[in-house]
Amino acid sequence: MLIVMKPTATQSDIGRVKDVIESLGYRAHVMSGVSRTAIGITGNEGAVDRTHFEHLPGVADAIHVTKPYKLVSKDLKLERSVVKVGNAEIGGDELAMIAGPCAVETPEHVFEIAEVVAKSGAKFFRGGAFKPRTSPYAFQGTGEEGLKILSEVRDQFGLNIVTEAMDERGIDLVEKYGDCIQIGARNMQNFSLLKYAGKASKPVLLKRGLSATLDELLLAAEYIMSEGNYDVILCERGIRSFGSHARNVLDLSIVPALHKITHLPVIVDPSHGTGRNYMVDPLARAAVAVGADGLIIEVHPCPEEALCDGAQALLPNQFLELYEQVAAIRKVVQPEAETVSV
Amino acid sequence: MLIVMKPTATQSDIGRVKDVIESLGYRAHVMSGVSRTAIGITGNEGAVDRTHFEHLPGVADAIHVTKPYKLVSKDLKLERSVVKVGNAEIGGDELAMIAGPCAVETPEHVFEIAEVVAKSGAKFFRGGAFKPRTSPYAFQGTGEEGLKILSEVRDQFGLNIVTEAMDERGIDLVEKYGDCIQIGARNMQNFSLLKYAGKASKPVLLKRGLSATLDELLLAAEYIMSEGNYDVILCERGIRSFGSHARNVLDLSIVPALHKITHLPVIVDPSHGTGRNYMVDPLARAAVAVGADGLIIEVHPCPEEALCDGAQALLPNQFLELYEQVAAIRKVVQPEAETVSV
Amino acid sequence: MLIVMKPTATQSDIGRVKDVIESLGYRAHVMSGVSRTAIGITGNEGAVDRTHFEHLPGVADAIHVTKPYKLVSKDLKLERSVVKVGNAEIGGDELAMIAGPCAVETPEHVFEIAEVVAKSGAKFFRGGAFKPRTSPYAFQGTGEEGLKILSEVRDQFGLNIVTEAMDERGIDLVEKYGDCIQIGARNMQNFSLLKYAGKASKPVLLKRGLSATLDELLLAAEYIMSEGNYDVILCERGIRSFGSHARNVLDLSIVPALHKITHLPVIVDPSHGTGRNYMVDPLARAAVAVGADGLIIEVHPCPEEALCDGAQALLPNQFLELYEQVAAIRKVVQPEAETVSV
Amino acid sequence: MLIVMKPTATQSDIGRVKDVIESLGYRAHVMSGVSRTAIGITGNEGAVDRTHFEHLPGVADAIHVTKPYKLVSKDLKLERSVVKVGNAEIGGDELAMIAGPCAVETPEHVFEIAEVVAKSGAKFFRGGAFKPRTSPYAFQGTGEEGLKILSEVRDQFGLNIVTEAMDERGIDLVEKYGDCIQIGARNMQNFSLLKYAGKASKPVLLKRGLSATLDELLLAAEYIMSEGNYDVILCERGIRSFGSHARNVLDLSIVPALHKITHLPVIVDPSHGTGRNYMVDPLARAAVAVGADGLIIEVHPCPEEALCDGAQALLPNQFLELYEQVAAIRKVVQPEAETVSV
Repeated sequence: MLIVMKPTATQSDIGRVKDVIESLGYRAHVMSGVSRTAIGITGNEGAVDRTHFEHLPGVADAIHVTKPYKLVSKDLKLERSVVKVGNAEIGGDELAMIAGPCAVETPEHVFEIAEVVAKSGAKFFRGGAFKPRTSPYAFQGTGEEGLKILSEVRDQFGLNIVTEAMDERGIDLVEKYGDCIQIGARNMQNFSLLKYAGKASKPVLLKRGLSATLDELLLAAEYIMSEGNYDVILCERGIRSFGSHARNVLDLSIVPALHKITHLPVIVDPSHGTGRNYMVDPLARAAVAVGADGLIIEVHPCPEEALCDGAQALLPNQFLELYEQVAAIRKVVQPEAETVSV
Repeated sequence: MLIVMKPTATQSDIGRVKDVIESLGYRAHVMSGVSRTAIGITGNEGAVDRTHFEHLPGVADAIHVTKPYKLVSKDLKLERSVVKVGNAEIGGDELAMIAGPCAVETPEHVFEIAEVVAKSGAKFFRGGAFKPRTSPYAFQGTGEEGLKILSEVRDQFGLNIVTEAMDERGIDLVEKYGDCIQIGARNMQNFSLLKYAGKASKPVLLKRGLSATLDELLLAAEYIMSEGNYDVILCERGIRSFGSHARNVLDLSIVPALHKITHLPVIVDPSHGTGRNYMVDPLARAAVAVGADGLIIEVHPCPEEALCDGAQALLPNQFLELYEQVAAIRKVVQPEAETVSV
Repeated sequence: MLIVMKPTATQSDIGRVKDVIESLGYRAHVMSGVSRTAIGITGNEGAVDRTHFEHLPGVADAIHVTKPYKLVSKDLKLERSVVKVGNAEIGGDELAMIAGPCAVETPEHVFEIAEVVAKSGAKFFRGGAFKPRTSPYAFQGTGEEGLKILSEVRDQFGLNIVTEAMDERGIDLVEKYGDCIQIGARNMQNFSLLKYAGKASKPVLLKRGLSATLDELLLAAEYIMSEGNYDVILCERGIRSFGSHARNVLDLSIVPALHKITHLPVIVDPSHGTGRNYMVDPLARAAVAVGADGLIIEVHPCPEEALCDGAQALLPNQFLELYEQVAAIRKVVQPEAETVSV
Repeated sequence: MLIVMKPTATQSDIGRVKDVIESLGYRAHVMSGVSRTAIGITGNEGAVDRTHFEHLPGVADAIHVTKPYKLVSKDLKLERSVVKVGNAEIGGDELAMIAGPCAVETPEHVFEIAEVVAKSGAKFFRGGAFKPRTSPYAFQGTGEEGLKILSEVRDQFGLNIVTEAMDERGIDLVEKYGDCIQIGARNMQNFSLLKYAGKASKPVLLKRGLSATLDELLLAAEYIMSEGNYDVILCERGIRSFGSHARNVLDLSIVPALHKITHLPVIVDPSHGTGRNYMVDPLARAAVAVGADGLIIEVHPCPEEALCDGAQALLPNQFLELYEQVAAIRKVVQPEAETVSV
């Protein structure tokens, strides 16, 4: 059930609806849009009786939700959500550029990359302190030490930190040191972790699983939102397929498909999505052309020495060139948008 | 084996190498590039003895080919091939736009669409007279009558005709009435048909199979070229995957992957690649951003009445808008290129 | 539309219905089952008016078909079809074993294998004279000479010949020399070829395409049947997927799925389905356990010298052991069936 | 590095090698086989120097491991591992049958099914108390209450309990109440959870991820084993593909592929692997025929009322019939094995 408030509804009208929902033992999710506020109801087992709501002051309509997802849906919020990450935003007019190394290695190497990223005009820095590696014998990340380095990057360069957590302890630490909790593709259906992230105070960047359908991705986001954390950013990062010319198949068609259904921002990761240095640039351009709200890109000064995923990292100057091109494409796609700062 | 000629080699030097190849019972494929001519050898069963060639006048090098493909490879021709289709080109600076209905239905409806396509500045018209349909009971196309209508479109609007053939008789007819023989995804590994198309006098647009790898696509092109028809255009049209938000997954990463290996032009079909009207525009933009040499787009004035694939056809005005956007993106991607005519 | 005749209907009743169908410009497909005869109608564009039929003598019912396929369906014929191939059958109580080399090479090597196959008790011999190879430069088969060798195998060993055709000329030749026309996975949606095979006088073994759905496979069979050739055998041979431990993923679940919908026999090819010698035996057992009507197996005395697909061929003694095991499993699965001759 | 001991090596020889490994700061994994003991080394970053070991008493060889996995490999242990689960075994001569409902609902319904399972002769009972559901609004399981019911099933029927854990707290509880910790497909690459399960005192049933490769599955098992828990059972449960005739494609080829590389037992889940009641029986037969060490099957007395996955559950009498058939096939496949108790 979804309660749509009239444009003229007051805060007290909204509060009254919320109280009724909670008195019925359900949970109320208030989503304020530009033109109207809507309130999603979760926690009900059967259908909710609309007569509880339809005559309350300020209520425009009580709508039965027939889709499997509620809070991610445009039915609840018509406008695209703009998610605040640190002191910047993802999902607004400006293309969000998140860049940095695959893994946090030494402070020197991280600061070297951060300097390039800051210079480019990008507002977000990526880098993993906890690395989900296929083999238990591969480099597993620098852990809390790595997070401290990232925290210094924020202090020194004013970049907002996006970094992965793989378990509850990791989420607590990213909340402490970072600005955005990344949940990786392999954990997209780690439902316990999603619920825990739903209680965190920082936004969540949720990557699509290797063979996740659109519905599964949206329902994973719904897991997070149903716990009260509405700041979710979705990320396409390539799906598993039969070919070998790229590490994954970057499924750009999911970007317009998601934008049609959900108000959440959608970004694209052409680095993991292709796994090949020479493909990152063209696929980044394509991702912006298809309408993505941002990019997440791996940059490394010596890719051949990277402790993980060097084959897909861009050199600093390649990254700077890429950023110029995607900014130009962004202007074509969204001419009314503010220009990105290059 | 691949014979690379010196830049100073004369036509008579080239002719002499060709003669030696043929005297050995092999077939010579002369590929002239801007900076050099190279001659591919096929028809050999074991390795070719390079001593036959390396001391001939004008020969720079005799190179052993270790890849599975020869004639499609950049080893043979460094520059991108520009394929002449009717009075226009695919693969050059100008973005090639091929547009028209899925199937040729009545003359009226075809002319109505052709007028829009011609007005847009596109130089190629698509439309199927022979339709490969999953069911034997679905509309199978209008056959030779349809081809005659297409031929009138060329006469009346100056558009070059790209249309599918499904068998040898079809190839003969498309050669007669059209400008470019399309071989569909389902026939990409119909090797008898590929060989027959290799003897045709018209260029071939070869669509990637539903689950074809990059190597399989290139080797299908190699089948055509090994018979002497070097005018092949490759087309990404979406691959089969597990999802359902689009009819296929448009694999744009294959565009840079192909451009890295082959000199042949690569175009993209966002209509079949997505199967959804609302996705055609964003994915067409993405295809141009990724570096495709052209687009093939379905346009229909009344998609809901189309005899096939109406769900993915653009309305005429949607097509005109799309063309403007992709032209602007083309300028970003290939700033040195001539502007497309809009 | 499907006309179900009463059990008491006479040949003349059936003939009258057929005449009415043809007088309406449609095509009648008479399918005689054990308990009843049904007549499928094809060639209609819109719905067929049932009032033409329901009062004719011998007619039990006139049923509207809502599924995309008509003639393959159990709606038309309740009992499983038993297809006569040469002097033996596929689809009956006895497990059909088709064995032989991937390609017909020399007469000596073919006869050597044929002797083993005949000795095993298998009734069908396979071997390709026309080989659909990914590369134009790979061995393409011995053509008509190969078919003549196969024809001698029949004369000398009493084995029925199953061999592939890739084009119309190939179908004519297989009709002349062989007992069953194989249409390979890559041609499963070569609709022109399917229609041509539908006019042939020999049964057709239709292999599932590399990424064909169940519906697409059934509709490919429907293409053949709609032209009047009702002797079609379906074959699962592995689908394309992301893994690399086997060449393809053998999708055994399609066997019960097909048996639920169609009356046509379904066999399995564990050789192409796995591409690994050591997997052929376990997957052959699994195919019989899942209920397949037969197996098609590659056997070669010196796999490492085979001109194609040596990696998946069984040695003669491996084949003999496999046959014993699958025969024992067949008895468990179909205890009432005649024992296979081992 | 892998230290192979001589057949004559004493416990004190083995202890000495272990001490040396630990003194170097590495971890020693002692695997005792029938004919020899081998000791795997993990925790090293670079190569381990073999000179530390090759002259120690009882050491036969010090082998460099080049594969990505160590402890799962047959290089370490030649014989198949037999994993003790409660008072029974998985991986030995006897086919392991694990049966029960998808989810633990009420005590009455669980006991009703347990009675059937016990009667069949199966030694393992399955049933989920924690359910990983795609939607946050679907039934999430009965939690610790459900585990208590399962514990009573063990007490009352002597069945060993296999049940899923989704997070660390869940693993603690399954350790307390159950006999085998199931890690589901969606958590196969939840590396934090794998490490935690590696410290548990109960065996782990690890399900293959929806699009996991063989290497990824083995490395997930390696994560568990590298923490000291060597009792891992692998489970094929179907992979994601393009088709719709079954919920997943059951990839039986992975069974012989795994048996070739790893000493760990491999079982098959035809219930989730197909998602269709009518397919469970044939695919269970196929799984046993292909050589699986066991089956995990969903049984429910009223599938249409099941709180999850009713469409794939067998009725009690269907399950009893299935068990008889698979037992007969097991005898064909492994004639030397003890007969399963039916």
